[in-house]
Amino acid sequence: MEENGGAGTTKWSISRPSAGTPLKVAGTMSIRAVLDRVFSSVDGSGPRPVLTLGSGDPTASPCFRPPPEAEDAIVEALRSGKHNGYSPTVGVLPARRAIAEYLSRDLSYQLSPDNIYLTAGCCQAIEVIISVLAQPGSNVLLPKPGFPLYESRTMFSNLEARHFNLIPDRGWEADLESLEALADENTVAMVIINPSNPCGSVYSYDHLAKIAETARKLGIIIIADEVYDHLVFGNKPFIPMGVFADIVPVITLGSISKRWLVPGWRLGWIATCDPNCVLKEAQVDKLIENYINITNDPATFIQGAVPQIIANTKEDYFNKILNLLRNSADLCYNKIKETRAITCPHKPEGSMFVMVKLDLSWLDGIQDDLDFCCRLAKEDSVIVLPGSALGMKDWIRINFATDVPTLENALERIKSFCQRHAKLQA
Amino acid sequence: MEENGGAGTTKWSISRPSAGTPLKVAGTMSIRAVLDRVFSSVDGSGPRPVLTLGSGDPTASPCFRPPPEAEDAIVEALRSGKHNGYSPTVGVLPARRAIAEYLSRDLSYQLSPDNIYLTAGCCQAIEVIISVLAQPGSNVLLPKPGFPLYESRTMFSNLEARHFNLIPDRGWEADLESLEALADENTVAMVIINPSNPCGSVYSYDHLAKIAETARKLGIIIIADEVYDHLVFGNKPFIPMGVFADIVPVITLGSISKRWLVPGWRLGWIATCDPNCVLKEAQVDKLIENYINITNDPATFIQGAVPQIIANTKEDYFNKILNLLRNSADLCYNKIKETRAITCPHKPEGSMFVMVKLDLSWLDGIQDDLDFCCRLAKEDSVIVLPGSALGMKDWIRINFATDVPTLENALERIKSFCQRHAKLQA
Repeated sequence: MEENGGAGTTKWSISRPSAGTPLKVAGTMSIRAVLDRVFSSVDGSGPRPVLTLGSGDPTASPCFRPPPEAEDAIVEALRSGKHNGYSPTVGVLPARRAIAEYLSRDLSYQLSPDNIYLTAGCCQAIEVIISVLAQPGSNVLLPKPGFPLYESRTMFSNLEARHFNLIPDRGWEADLESLEALADENTVAMVIINPSNPCGSVYSYDHLAKIAETARKLGIIIIADEVYDHLVFGNKPFIPMGVFADIVPVITLGSISKRWLVPGWRLGWIATCDPNCVLKEAQVDKLIENYINITNDPATFIQGAVPQIIANTKEDYFNKILNLLRNSADLCYNKIKETRAITCPHKPEGSMFVMVKLDLSWLDGIQDDLDFCCRLAKEDSVIVLPGSALGMKDWIRINFATDVPTLENALERIKSFCQRHAKLQA
Repeated sequence: MEENGGAGTTKWSISRPSAGTPLKVAGTMSIRAVLDRVFSSVDGSGPRPVLTLGSGDPTASPCFRPPPEAEDAIVEALRSGKHNGYSPTVGVLPARRAIAEYLSRDLSYQLSPDNIYLTAGCCQAIEVIISVLAQPGSNVLLPKPGFPLYESRTMFSNLEARHFNLIPDRGWEADLESLEALADENTVAMVIINPSNPCGSVYSYDHLAKIAETARKLGIIIIADEVYDHLVFGNKPFIPMGVFADIVPVITLGSISKRWLVPGWRLGWIATCDPNCVLKEAQVDKLIENYINITNDPATFIQGAVPQIIANTKEDYFNKILNLLRNSADLCYNKIKETRAITCPHKPEGSMFVMVKLDLSWLDGIQDDLDFCCRLAKEDSVIVLPGSALGMKDWIRINFATDVPTLENALERIKSFCQRHAKLQA
């Protein structure tokens, strides 16, 4: 090879123009990357504070603080000096046992610690599962709208993603007929997010049963993203997909991030709900272990605190948070009704989000959802997520999990923005 | 497609025999996977406690406890309530600033926070860098012996790994002539681990300078794995590769795991030492951001504690740990000399490890290093790492960072094992 000469002339191989990699695309479609773009539109010299309803992180509001019992459990685990070293790949046993028991409360069978793999938040659980499913030629069915990390990770892993619609007018239920038409013999799994990010919907027992039967008919397993488990405040209870695991093998993804309001603690899990041992016989458990062998773990002392976090958090705490979310969801839904150019087809019943449809025919000179969000950021210092980040062009996602004054203020600014940009009707 | 019928007849697509994936191989070659195999040989009914010199984790010994200032910093960050939410992708600014200043103490130029990306331990830093370098057709030069996560991640990412030798009789210096012969126009980087895991060696200024000149000549960047930075107790000081960044762009990987004895806290970093902006112009910084956008972060409150951890830990603490390591290294080296079948070509000067050569011609019926380790585990309840896990067949790696009684006991058992299995010489 040609050797490099003096200081100015070195040719670095890293500088070669390389083929466009999936990484370049995958890494720019994350919620954080899109929100960064919206944020960059904010007029820093504006007189009003920036109000952020963009991400799934309510922790900036003092009313959404984790239970003190959870903090205490972390301090105790840290101070014990027993959790400074590496953990086993699958996570420490007491935490896996506590999570198995926690999830089994809602099931008619008992999960064992062997069904539980600890992950660094639900995001890493998604990374693990997509990496495990990514066999050459396979495809996976993802909901639209959905959570973009599924798109990024399937793209990065060269796993084909096919999208089935969620139907706004049917409470964002999955369109199972179109889903069936998408599947073929290379389809390995479908992803169901319930309670739904970004839709705020909660699926009924009947709809979940239909999903399970459809999956069984197609011979595909279900990835049940239940990171918002138990965050329901409408009429429907939370029913885990694992209830239907005798019909279809279910891999449940979860986390303490949302229910305990600690997304930054990075503690999640994968649970194989597999009473008929389909996953075990297919060695999916071994593949999960293989992948987590070559990736990082959650901090060991946070793992060590999990049993106490689960055991000591009182029902009152959860109820208080659900009341706050219900109140905010109502406020949000009612305020949106007042504005002609935006509509909310389904009142949120769970999670922290609502999907809002933009009617661009009522707005003057707004190109699309990204333009709407960037101009709203620039003119009114309010951050919401463009729906195109979730596969829903000309929708926006609002996170209503914030304190009431902030939420009211932000919704008022959105209303005023829409009124200022209203098209004069003929 | 064929539809599934009744309960017993469902064909699950996940159960199809799929082509052997890189994941299956990559996930079984980790240190933890190999150590699990060795552990499984232990006779659980044996009378003696199991002594583990296998992994790079000294935290089981009470003498290797983190500084109380570091624990206090974590508690303070947690109790502040300011670090429960998601962090920015690249990590929180005060932590990145503190690490930039910490690393700059040993450099003649100043790193900025923009050069620092926080990762969940150094393992994730390796994952990020290998994923970023993995362009189709590229290859990377790795040391042999080395750290197997580099092998697993290159295999998983379809990045070709080529190995250059470290020479035991030259203090485990890199064989730069053979390294040059390995490189071609598709070589993007070489990895240098200093202080060395697994060799316990520390490179001189002169050798590091030669490495830098070689990399420049080849036009390849250096990945400097300095997770054991400052853990040196021989005659040579620790010199970061970043000192030579005006000759060659250096990407430094580091962590608080080893120097602060908190491997389970999972806080590491990537630092781009790039005074000539080669990496920036090649948009390596953007690719790093792209990847960390789609992976998990270290826990936010641990990030939040970093400035205080660095500022408050006293020099006395580091000196105390170095004295312990020096003493243990001496003990280990001298004890190994007493046993005919095992030799240590180079006295450790840094990290926590020593590579020990097995002379199988002096041992009766021991097949190889894995056999040696499994039988040692079974018969004497001592765990050491087979060298084949590091690319060095018929060597073993010993971690000497444990309390003196445990180390003496374990080395005595190894000596007795070798004597029991000594071949009767003609």
